[in-house]
Amino acid sequence: MKYQFAERVDLMKSSAIREILKVTQEPDMISFAGGLPAPELFPLAGIREAFQEALSSDPAVLQYSNTEGFLPLREYIVSKMQQDGINARAENVLITNGSQQALDLITKLFINPGDIVLVEKPSYLGALQVFRSYQAKFVDIATDYEGINVDAFELAIKEYHPKLIYLTPTFKNPTGVTLAADRRRAVAGLAAKYKVPLIEDDPYRELRYYGDPVPPIKSFDGSDWVIYMGSFSKIIAPGLRLGWVATEGELMDKLVLAKQGTDLHTGTLVQRGVYNYLVNHNIKAHIEAIRAEYGRRRDVMLQQMDEQFPKNFSWTKPDGGMFLWVTLPEGANSGSLLKQAIKEKVAYVPGAMFFPNGGGLNTLRLNFSNSTPVKIKAGIQRLARLLTE
Amino acid sequence: MKYQFAERVDLMKSSAIREILKVTQEPDMISFAGGLPAPELFPLAGIREAFQEALSSDPAVLQYSNTEGFLPLREYIVSKMQQDGINARAENVLITNGSQQALDLITKLFINPGDIVLVEKPSYLGALQVFRSYQAKFVDIATDYEGINVDAFELAIKEYHPKLIYLTPTFKNPTGVTLAADRRRAVAGLAAKYKVPLIEDDPYRELRYYGDPVPPIKSFDGSDWVIYMGSFSKIIAPGLRLGWVATEGELMDKLVLAKQGTDLHTGTLVQRGVYNYLVNHNIKAHIEAIRAEYGRRRDVMLQQMDEQFPKNFSWTKPDGGMFLWVTLPEGANSGSLLKQAIKEKVAYVPGAMFFPNGGGLNTLRLNFSNSTPVKIKAGIQRLARLLTE
Repeated sequence: MKYQFAERVDLMKSSAIREILKVTQEPDMISFAGGLPAPELFPLAGIREAFQEALSSDPAVLQYSNTEGFLPLREYIVSKMQQDGINARAENVLITNGSQQALDLITKLFINPGDIVLVEKPSYLGALQVFRSYQAKFVDIATDYEGINVDAFELAIKEYHPKLIYLTPTFKNPTGVTLAADRRRAVAGLAAKYKVPLIEDDPYRELRYYGDPVPPIKSFDGSDWVIYMGSFSKIIAPGLRLGWVATEGELMDKLVLAKQGTDLHTGTLVQRGVYNYLVNHNIKAHIEAIRAEYGRRRDVMLQQMDEQFPKNFSWTKPDGGMFLWVTLPEGANSGSLLKQAIKEKVAYVPGAMFFPNGGGLNTLRLNFSNSTPVKIKAGIQRLARLLTE
Repeated sequence: MKYQFAERVDLMKSSAIREILKVTQEPDMISFAGGLPAPELFPLAGIREAFQEALSSDPAVLQYSNTEGFLPLREYIVSKMQQDGINARAENVLITNGSQQALDLITKLFINPGDIVLVEKPSYLGALQVFRSYQAKFVDIATDYEGINVDAFELAIKEYHPKLIYLTPTFKNPTGVTLAADRRRAVAGLAAKYKVPLIEDDPYRELRYYGDPVPPIKSFDGSDWVIYMGSFSKIIAPGLRLGWVATEGELMDKLVLAKQGTDLHTGTLVQRGVYNYLVNHNIKAHIEAIRAEYGRRRDVMLQQMDEQFPKNFSWTKPDGGMFLWVTLPEGANSGSLLKQAIKEKVAYVPGAMFFPNGGGLNTLRLNFSNSTPVKIKAGIQRLARLLTE
C-alpha cells in the first residue's frame, strides 16, 4: 500500500449493494436490488420549468449562499413538517445534499472512535457505512412487525450508554416495517429520559399506499432529543441531492459549522429550482401519482409472492415505502444463492449486509418501486423457482 | 451544554470571514472582505439553456448516479487538465460538491488526531477549518513573493513528518502570490522523495490577467504524490457547487468510498447541466470576458493604492486571481482597525486569521473581483484615510 491512511479508513467498505448494482445493468436483468424510484414518474417538465424560472433573472441563483440554506425553502419545510405534527422554525432547519449528508454531519459531531450507536436490526446500510467511517461500534435491537422492541431498547440504553440512536421508523429500508405509534411515543420519552440524541430518518413518510399516517417520533419529542431528517429524493427525485435536518439551536449551530467546513453550502441553484417546483407546481398531485403507481407495484409483487412462494417463506406486507423483506427457512443462505439468481437474470440484496453485528443470512430485500408490474411478475416467478429448489 | 459532542467539535470554529460578511450586507457598505466572483458576469442565459437541455428528455438526469461522477464531464476535465500539462484518465477524476468537499474527503482519509499538515503561512482559511475539524496540527512555512521557501519546506518535512502537504500555488487565497515554476518542480520532487501526499488546490488558474501560465505542480509529478483539485466556481459560478479531485487509483478508490458514505454522489442534474454548458456554449469567450473585467478591477485597485497608501505600506501585485494582500507597518493591528473601518463603510479581512499558528496581525486581505471600479476607488480612499491615521 502506497499511503499511510488514517485509522478510520480500515473500516470503510464499499456498499455491497453498489457492487451488486454493477452486474444488474444488463437490459434483460430484472433487478429488485437497487433502492431506486421509478424514473418514468419523475416530474421532468415541472422541474425544467422551475429551473428555467430560477435562472431567468437574478444572478444570485448562481452565487455563493449561506450555509443554512435558502430561507424560503426552509420555511416551506417548516410548514411541511408542521402538517406532520412537528413544531419547528426556519432557524431549526439545515439544507443538506440529501439526507445522507445530514447523517454524516451528525455523526461527525457526536462520534469518537469506539462510541456506541444504537441501531435497529436490520438497519439502512448507508447509515451503517457512515457510522463505521467514524469508528463507531453498534448495539443492534431486534425488531418485529411493529418495529423495535421498546423494552430491549431501554435495556440497551441502560447497559451500553450509546452516544446516538438511529431509527428509520416509517416504511423502513430494508424491511418496509413501520414503528407503531405507541412505541414512537415510548422511544421519544426514553431518548429524553436518558439524554441520548435520537436520529429519526424519515424519507419514505409520504409513500403511503394504505392506512393512516403515523406521527413522526419527533412529534412526541417534548425536550428536543430527536433529530429529524427528511428528503426530497423519494417525492421529487434523488438526482437533485436535496434533504434536510431539523433540530434545536445548540446542535444546529454545530451542524452549520460542520457543513461549512465540509462543502460551504448546498447548491444555490438546486435549492431555488426545487423551491420553485414546490410552490408553483402541483406537488400534491405528483405525490398522489407516484403513490398510486408504487402501490400497484407493491400489490402485484405481494400477490405474485402469495401465489409462487412456498409456505415456509415469510415476508413483510408494508403499507408503504419501496421495499419488501423476505425470510427464508432457517439454514438458507441468500448470499450464496445470489450468484445463481444473477445467472437467471433476477437480482435482490442479501439481508445479511443490513445486520451490523452479523445475522440475517436467510433474509433478503426486494425493491418494487423501480420495476414495472410485468417485470415484477416475471422476476418473482424466476425467484420462486430458484429459491424453492 | 446539552450534548456530549465528539472531541473534534472543540476545534470547529465558525469562519470569522462569514461573521464579517454578515455585517457587510448593508447597501452603502463597500466590502473587499468576501471572496465572491462578480454575479453580473455569471453566464445566466447559457446555464439556463444548458439546464433546459439537460431536462428535456432523459429522466436519468434526476436519478441516483454513480459516486465517481458523470463520465462525459470527467472526460472533459481530463482534456482540460491535459492542456495544463497534467496526464490523467477519467478513472482518476472524482466530481465533488465544490473543491471544498474534496479537501474534506482527503483529510478524512489521511488525518488521525494530532497528525501534522504542512501549510503555507498564510493559507486558505477554508482548508484550515477542514484540517482542524479532523484534529490536525499545523506546521506553517514562510512565503515570499514567489511562494514558499523550498529549503524551509524540506526542513519541515524532515523534522515534522507531515501526513499531508497543502498548497494553493496559483494566485493564492489570501495573498494572490504564485509559486515560481522552479519551486513547483522542487516541491513535487520533495513530496515524492519523502512520500508525503501534496494537495495542489488550483481554483484560480484561469483567472490570469498578465504573464504566461505556470504549469501545475501536478505536471512535474512523476510518481503520483500530488493530488490535484480544480473547481468550476471561479470560471462559471460557485452556487453550482461543482469541483473535482484528480489522483491515482489506490487513493481514488478510497476517495470514492468516502464520498459514497458522505453524500452518495454529486447531483446528477448539476453535473449534466454544467457539462452541456461546457460543450455547447463558448466557455473560452466567457473566461476571456471575466479575465478582462477582473483585470481591470485589479488595475484600478492597485493604481488607487499606489496613489493613496503611505510609503510604509506594502502589498502584492498578483498577475491574477481575486485578492491583494496588504502589509501595514510593524505594530499595526488590522483586526482592531476593522471595527472602525466598518463604521466608515468599508470592509476587509484581517490577515491574522489565515495564519494557523499565529502572526500576521499587521496584514489584511482585499478582494477586487466583487466590486465595480467606482466602488473600488471609493473604498480604497476610505481605507487609506483610516489606515493612515
